[in-house]
Amino acid sequence: MSSLLEQLIEALRVLPGVGAKSAQRMAYHLLERERAGGQRLAEVLAAAMERIGHCERCRDFSESPLCATCASPSRDAHLLCVVETPADRLAIEQATGYRGLYFVLQGRLSPLDGIGPRELGLDRLAARLAGGEVQELIVATNPTVEGEATAHYLAQLARQHGVRPSRPAHGVPLGGELEYVDRGTLSHAFGSRSEMV
Amino acid sequence: MSSLLEQLIEALRVLPGVGAKSAQRMAYHLLERERAGGQRLAEVLAAAMERIGHCERCRDFSESPLCATCASPSRDAHLLCVVETPADRLAIEQATGYRGLYFVLQGRLSPLDGIGPRELGLDRLAARLAGGEVQELIVATNPTVEGEATAHYLAQLARQHGVRPSRPAHGVPLGGELEYVDRGTLSHAFGSRSEMV
Ligand SMILES: [Zn+2]
Ligand SMILES: [Zn+2]
Repeated sequence: MSSLLEQLIEALRVLPGVGAKSAQRMAYHLLERERAGGQRLAEVLAAAMERIGHCERCRDFSESPLCATCASPSRDAHLLCVVETPADRLAIEQATGYRGLYFVLQGRLSPLDGIGPRELGLDRLAARLAGGEVQELIVATNPTVEGEATAHYLAQLARQHGVRPSRPAHGVPLGGELEYVDRGTLSHAFGSRSEMV
Repeated sequence: MSSLLEQLIEALRVLPGVGAKSAQRMAYHLLERERAGGQRLAEVLAAAMERIGHCERCRDFSESPLCATCASPSRDAHLLCVVETPADRLAIEQATGYRGLYFVLQGRLSPLDGIGPRELGLDRLAARLAGGEVQELIVATNPTVEGEATAHYLAQLARQHGVRPSRPAHGVPLGGELEYVDRGTLSHAFGSRSEMV
């Protein structure tokens, strides 16, 4: 086996869920049938790793300082939805008719892993809540133990600034991950969110 | 969602078995946790798509005109093993103690798809069999209908040049693909190969 081929198989294993056998299958597939697609992937991947950073307002992935959603004048700035990951944000955007703004934690509170309010950018979130424009904070963290603890913390933070916290309702399976919930369920849960008490 | 991110998700779908959802998961994973690995993959992938061609002797993938196996003086040139794909060749190399040489068809006879002897490089194989060095042709095509038809053709070709054709024995499941056979089975099948009659 050529050394460059071995390097390719090894490099492909950086992808999640890709072990030695499927990395090998991917490498052979590209070499046999998808040279152009492989070249294209190499170019886009290099550009993406280099140029995609975080939106300075919502912390979602973005090529520019402000992401398209934050920069849009047609979104309702009275509604702010907090999610754990960019994938959660995308799931909500695709499944629901939500027209407010987002804040992406890029994680959840996890003191044992050294992830506190600072690591999640909650100082920036607090400043935004203090700004007076946000009226409702939709806390869409995952219904896991850490996600619930994070939600509780965020609800308190909202109330401190006179902002009403709410949480998407029934439908998201307990212990599940928002990202993998079907669209219908997620849309329903989002529509019937309840105020946190 | 940023346009470059959308392009990355789309480009990842060139990989086999990767749909929209897993392409998205891969993109987020790389951006969140594997920037360096993603950069490395982009570089190796570009180099591999550009520089990996085929060995002019055995048709396996190779960066150089002659692959490492064909160039090695320690392989037994009296034994020649014919396989359908580079993955089959690798499976045999890893599972068995085979020390002969290979010939990679990069396919199998399939007249309806326009794949005949010429497309599989069988003129080159015939010239090699005529050379007099090869004593046994191990026909390790897959035990599928087309693989068996190809094996039959290759056995005839071998006999025409006074070369003994053989076929790996029991153990490879009927209708299966060599690439996915466990090592023990493949090694056994290879060791107890029988002469084709
Ligand atoms: Zn933003
Ligand atoms: Zn070779």
